[in-house]
Amino acid sequence: MSKGTVVLAYSGGLDTSCILVWLKEQGYDVITYLANIGQEEDFEAARKKAEKLGAKKVYIEDLRAEFVEDFIWPAVQANAVYEDPIPVEIAQKEGANFVSHGATGKGNDQIRFELTCYALYPEVKIIAPWRIPEFYNRFKGRIDLMEYAEKHGIPVPVTPKAPWSMDANLMHISYESGILENPKSHAPTDLYLMTKDPQDSPNVPDVLEIQFKNGVPVMVNNLKEGQSKSSPLEIFSYLNEIGGKHGVGRIDIVENRFIGMKSRGIYETPGGTILLAAHLDIETFTMDKEVRRIKQRLGVTFSEQVYNGFWYSPECEFVRHCIAKSQVNVEGKVQLSVFKGHIYILGRESPKSLYNEELVSMDVQGDYNPCDASGFIKINAVRLASFEPLRILPYICTKLL
Amino acid sequence: MSKGTVVLAYSGGLDTSCILVWLKEQGYDVITYLANIGQEEDFEAARKKAEKLGAKKVYIEDLRAEFVEDFIWPAVQANAVYEDPIPVEIAQKEGANFVSHGATGKGNDQIRFELTCYALYPEVKIIAPWRIPEFYNRFKGRIDLMEYAEKHGIPVPVTPKAPWSMDANLMHISYESGILENPKSHAPTDLYLMTKDPQDSPNVPDVLEIQFKNGVPVMVNNLKEGQSKSSPLEIFSYLNEIGGKHGVGRIDIVENRFIGMKSRGIYETPGGTILLAAHLDIETFTMDKEVRRIKQRLGVTFSEQVYNGFWYSPECEFVRHCIAKSQVNVEGKVQLSVFKGHIYILGRESPKSLYNEELVSMDVQGDYNPCDASGFIKINAVRLASFEPLRILPYICTKLL
Amino acid sequence: MSKGTVVLAYSGGLDTSCILVWLKEQGYDVITYLANIGQEEDFEAARKKAEKLGAKKVYIEDLRAEFVEDFIWPAVQANAVYEDPIPVEIAQKEGANFVSHGATGKGNDQIRFELTCYALYPEVKIIAPWRIPEFYNRFKGRIDLMEYAEKHGIPVPVTPKAPWSMDANLMHISYESGILENPKSHAPTDLYLMTKDPQDSPNVPDVLEIQFKNGVPVMVNNLKEGQSKSSPLEIFSYLNEIGGKHGVGRIDIVENRFIGMKSRGIYETPGGTILLAAHLDIETFTMDKEVRRIKQRLGVTFSEQVYNGFWYSPECEFVRHCIAKSQVNVEGKVQLSVFKGHIYILGRESPKSLYNEELVSMDVQGDYNPCDASGFIKINAVRLASFEPLRILPYICTKLL
Amino acid sequence: MSKGTVVLAYSGGLDTSCILVWLKEQGYDVITYLANIGQEEDFEAARKKAEKLGAKKVYIEDLRAEFVEDFIWPAVQANAVYEDPIPVEIAQKEGANFVSHGATGKGNDQIRFELTCYALYPEVKIIAPWRIPEFYNRFKGRIDLMEYAEKHGIPVPVTPKAPWSMDANLMHISYESGILENPKSHAPTDLYLMTKDPQDSPNVPDVLEIQFKNGVPVMVNNLKEGQSKSSPLEIFSYLNEIGGKHGVGRIDIVENRFIGMKSRGIYETPGGTILLAAHLDIETFTMDKEVRRIKQRLGVTFSEQVYNGFWYSPECEFVRHCIAKSQVNVEGKVQLSVFKGHIYILGRESPKSLYNEELVSMDVQGDYNPCDASGFIKINAVRLASFEPLRILPYICTKLL
Repeated sequence: MSKGTVVLAYSGGLDTSCILVWLKEQGYDVITYLANIGQEEDFEAARKKAEKLGAKKVYIEDLRAEFVEDFIWPAVQANAVYEDPIPVEIAQKEGANFVSHGATGKGNDQIRFELTCYALYPEVKIIAPWRIPEFYNRFKGRIDLMEYAEKHGIPVPVTPKAPWSMDANLMHISYESGILENPKSHAPTDLYLMTKDPQDSPNVPDVLEIQFKNGVPVMVNNLKEGQSKSSPLEIFSYLNEIGGKHGVGRIDIVENRFIGMKSRGIYETPGGTILLAAHLDIETFTMDKEVRRIKQRLGVTFSEQVYNGFWYSPECEFVRHCIAKSQVNVEGKVQLSVFKGHIYILGRESPKSLYNEELVSMDVQGDYNPCDASGFIKINAVRLASFEPLRILPYICTKLL
Repeated sequence: MSKGTVVLAYSGGLDTSCILVWLKEQGYDVITYLANIGQEEDFEAARKKAEKLGAKKVYIEDLRAEFVEDFIWPAVQANAVYEDPIPVEIAQKEGANFVSHGATGKGNDQIRFELTCYALYPEVKIIAPWRIPEFYNRFKGRIDLMEYAEKHGIPVPVTPKAPWSMDANLMHISYESGILENPKSHAPTDLYLMTKDPQDSPNVPDVLEIQFKNGVPVMVNNLKEGQSKSSPLEIFSYLNEIGGKHGVGRIDIVENRFIGMKSRGIYETPGGTILLAAHLDIETFTMDKEVRRIKQRLGVTFSEQVYNGFWYSPECEFVRHCIAKSQVNVEGKVQLSVFKGHIYILGRESPKSLYNEELVSMDVQGDYNPCDASGFIKINAVRLASFEPLRILPYICTKLL
Repeated sequence: MSKGTVVLAYSGGLDTSCILVWLKEQGYDVITYLANIGQEEDFEAARKKAEKLGAKKVYIEDLRAEFVEDFIWPAVQANAVYEDPIPVEIAQKEGANFVSHGATGKGNDQIRFELTCYALYPEVKIIAPWRIPEFYNRFKGRIDLMEYAEKHGIPVPVTPKAPWSMDANLMHISYESGILENPKSHAPTDLYLMTKDPQDSPNVPDVLEIQFKNGVPVMVNNLKEGQSKSSPLEIFSYLNEIGGKHGVGRIDIVENRFIGMKSRGIYETPGGTILLAAHLDIETFTMDKEVRRIKQRLGVTFSEQVYNGFWYSPECEFVRHCIAKSQVNVEGKVQLSVFKGHIYILGRESPKSLYNEELVSMDVQGDYNPCDASGFIKINAVRLASFEPLRILPYICTKLL
Repeated sequence: MSKGTVVLAYSGGLDTSCILVWLKEQGYDVITYLANIGQEEDFEAARKKAEKLGAKKVYIEDLRAEFVEDFIWPAVQANAVYEDPIPVEIAQKEGANFVSHGATGKGNDQIRFELTCYALYPEVKIIAPWRIPEFYNRFKGRIDLMEYAEKHGIPVPVTPKAPWSMDANLMHISYESGILENPKSHAPTDLYLMTKDPQDSPNVPDVLEIQFKNGVPVMVNNLKEGQSKSSPLEIFSYLNEIGGKHGVGRIDIVENRFIGMKSRGIYETPGGTILLAAHLDIETFTMDKEVRRIKQRLGVTFSEQVYNGFWYSPECEFVRHCIAKSQVNVEGKVQLSVFKGHIYILGRESPKSLYNEELVSMDVQGDYNPCDASGFIKINAVRLASFEPLRILPYICTKLL
């Protein structure tokens, strides 16, 4: 008799295929779930593989448009980078008591996955094989997985595995582990899949105009080539294409996982990087500076929430509300050029601009009375009169006191 | 009889030369002060000009090394960009009751200049001609200044003025006003003085290794060309040179002046941009994540303080203390390449690294027990059980409620 | 011919009566405006006085209900204290180009008043006599005002002025200046007008139940005496009555005026203090802890905005939106007793409570698995393993380094 | 053969006595550790009990003075309330591999205890019986413990246990659980041990003068009775005595445990409450307002760190450094009266005061030029000119948009 039904986040790869079979061995019925969020994948092959390995049911969903609109757009508004969507509502629909995934026990993915599950479906039980001793003691390395695969008729990948792991979606590809674990060693040049090496990228920039409304892009025009995109998925895909062509969005960083360790990751975020630059520009142009100071703090909070897996939490919902509210006037057009891995803002315009060309002009006096600045400065200095500054404050702490 | 002595921040240009003569006309003795903080200037010519125009005394000081160590280094620690130094201690030494400057009445420069004066020398009186009606009504445009100059034997510049204004120091050159006031119009390609156009910059990157101690650079090596610099001024000048050569550090932004207007500025910050990237990397590598969250907020506060002219204030002194304290372990080496306007971090190492390669490794279990992650996640989810998330929260505010 | 029309914020007192006459002397038509926001005042007498002194028009409005709902309630939601309303829309209605007030040149009142004017009516011109040399040099002390009053038929107060100044509204009375300027001297016992001296207050507490919805009170019941109030103005007035009877809400503090000076103020805020305590309690009971951390920061920001006069600003409007959003579930009943200057929270209940009595119970295991706490703690300690704490960190900074 | 040595945090009560015996049953050698941090306890009786029950070694240490200076004083500087010290260095000294405690699996105590252990002694292993199924399944209620005690010769308490649990130290006594778990039910009047019921407290106030240096008290004088205390422990004990006598420091709150649940607690903090009020006052008096804004945020962070058990963490050490630095000028004397549960600040003086009586005076013009305020206000309003305020912003969110 079955122990119950598990919905397994299935990628089609060796790990989750072994998990699928192993879960069946443990006595569970397994439903596989694979979402297309923009990663390169042969979804049909994955379906067949899952069916062949005995999945009771196989879900494959194209979530790309929702991913852009529901997850990437709020991140753009926050000037943040979204991490990864985990839409696990199938379990509820199927009445499954369990969900399972192939994420490791040291990463952030497991946390995002599971917190999302607990938030959306509090009664669910989670099976994380890489945290179960019987599983991880049995599968100590890739060789054990290969052996198990052969024994259980799981198709074994023919190309050797890259000496690092990667995770891909529309927003970015991240690379970590393996040879990247040494923080000193440089990433190999053949690692990148979304972006061209800037040394080989075109010698002529592309010039884009991105139009925003409510803080999200509603149109992108390539001013050189005349192309134009206007649906969310098309816009984002096109920015990925242009960014990728010019080698934009490669970074090599040390991160602080929620779980308390530092890790080293390489990211490619071509379209996201262009959008971030453009959004920052139009936001400063149209948002009051004091509103922006507050909104920026909320954006930092939002980034931490998302990075730590709390998208579905009261605090993130609250912050998303506040941030969306701050974006009502963030509209207008930003012109920028993309060239050799870099983005150059060229100019901007907006019907909601708070930039007052006449007020700021050196050549126009206007309503502004420069004498007022004297009073402004003097009052700001009232507090300073009783202060005895250290003329020079050493930047080295041991000299400080 | 003299009305008193004024120390005038003198640049040698048309404006401050006219102010020099005008102040004399008003009955003041004038001492000129010109600091070399890395701007391109013929300091000897400026000295002669000031003497010829009747300055009672002429000060010209090379402050470049102090500028780097006392002002740029703390900004590097804070991941901020320093704005402008205003060392006005001459007035006290000379017993002058007045200081004067040629800054306009709409900018941030006047505020930085005057708050610094009031903090260091509270009794000082400030003469800001561009805020005095008799002055600004007399000199309504450049033509009035030219006319006045000719009449008073002030050498008139032979080359026409660029259709924008600029301000230069070792850290950066900023451009604003004139044709740049239209936020939509692109900056002309011949504007930039510190950086090469990335389209014309070398097709081969430079690879640098920057070594930090206490959060400031103590050595830079060019790994390709074998060069090495180790004094603060040499390091910063060399980074300016490399950054300039590769077109690094150009930005076009809308700013929020303290005075409450938005303005548009173009900046070149070649060396500063390289340092910011390198410092961010070594900081994340060596600083505890929770310390870093707190330090980042302090860094934002510091940037605002400096931008608004409060370097010499109790709050900035306090924040600089705290930030310096946070940097005691920020040491190690960062390798990066500079190419076509962009900086690529390649790797890092540090004796104070908090990165634990064994702990983070996917291949090593070590002390870490993956089962603990289950408890960690479950406890983090306790709070979420009573939360009913909106599955999808519209990013457009009007749909929100 | 008239120089134009001025709307004068008129109190009926000596100062603003003199200003009324003086403005007429300067050639203005004067409309007086007096709002009833809960201060003790003979409004009819003030009307007659203004008419007698030649006001072109006299406005007296009862704004108490609006004051509570539009200004105090948002402050309650923010756990802040509201300062003072300045409803100056009469000027626009009357087509007057000027407004005037009797606030001094060193206080916060002038700022709140004028920023409100500029925000609501940007073209308005403000006449602040206490900042106009011709005025303040003429009226150097109370004697000058008295003399002027006598000369111009302004009724002179018969009772001597208290040796401090005060400002009253429904929310509180503030006292400052005069003998209170010495920060060391104790406030005289006969100063307080809203609250009884706790040494003379009843020896038996009142017990109240305050019911909240959307973070604002909707009902108050006196459990002992059976009284019940439900309209905003009645609720607030009743809390003032009970708080006043028991001597609640007296404070003596040093403040930091926006203008950069420290001042000493004595406040009585009887009803507001009760509401603050009750709101804090029901808020913690019904609001997720992470939402609350964010909301608390917004509340601090809101308090600063209001204190500095930026109620009508984009940033305050934004923050009020966010705070209101945070209050949707802040409902329920709080029981408290009021006795001898202090408030004691006794208990609370709410249909939206996030308090889970079963979960927290020491006697019930429930869904909660205590073993999870081990993993939670261990993962939280991962980061600490590489940290070498100073066992004892001196609390005196000079010993620190 | 012994499984190893355990250092057990021993209170002398039923729970930890049973744990002592149980640990021995499990095969451990047990060393008991009991710190005197101000709780009411018969320490000699506890020593004898531990010896009788077979402890290999019994440590009893008087840590009261260190507790005040090393833990309470930094909390006073931060305007925070310290929670609980866990000095567990005995284990290292004794070469014990294990520590154990009797804290429950749902509270914050376990976290504070264990994070401290992991930070100070990373290799230690923790035995938390109330999270070990064999233990908590065996001891489901007090009756099981009583039975076990009788069987194993553990002296059984003769007085019935109060229907709540409590935890005491010099700083405060906290009460929770049992009948207090219902958040609506009022705390019984006989619960409080440190403070007198304000209804029965003296009808005459005590008036104290507290002197601070470096942000901590260095002297307290009772102005009525002439008493004076100057050592940290004496000062704090005396404030506890006076606060207790007048019923000061009782609160009933809902807390947010780190572990994600809300709990209800009753606290008595007599001396701490007096110190908090006095410190807040002298701090505002002597600290620049902008420094204070930054320091307040650090204080909030510090409170969270301490509440969540991260006293020994890099971030708390950093924050304590920063806060201590902020306190160098926080010195002077505060006069206050203590009466019927409330504290009234009466006045303050300081050699480091930033309060400028002449500057703030309404009667003295001094250096301050009121005209400057006009410029100050106008420049602050520049930004507001382009803002169209909603005259009234509903405080109820559903009406907002």
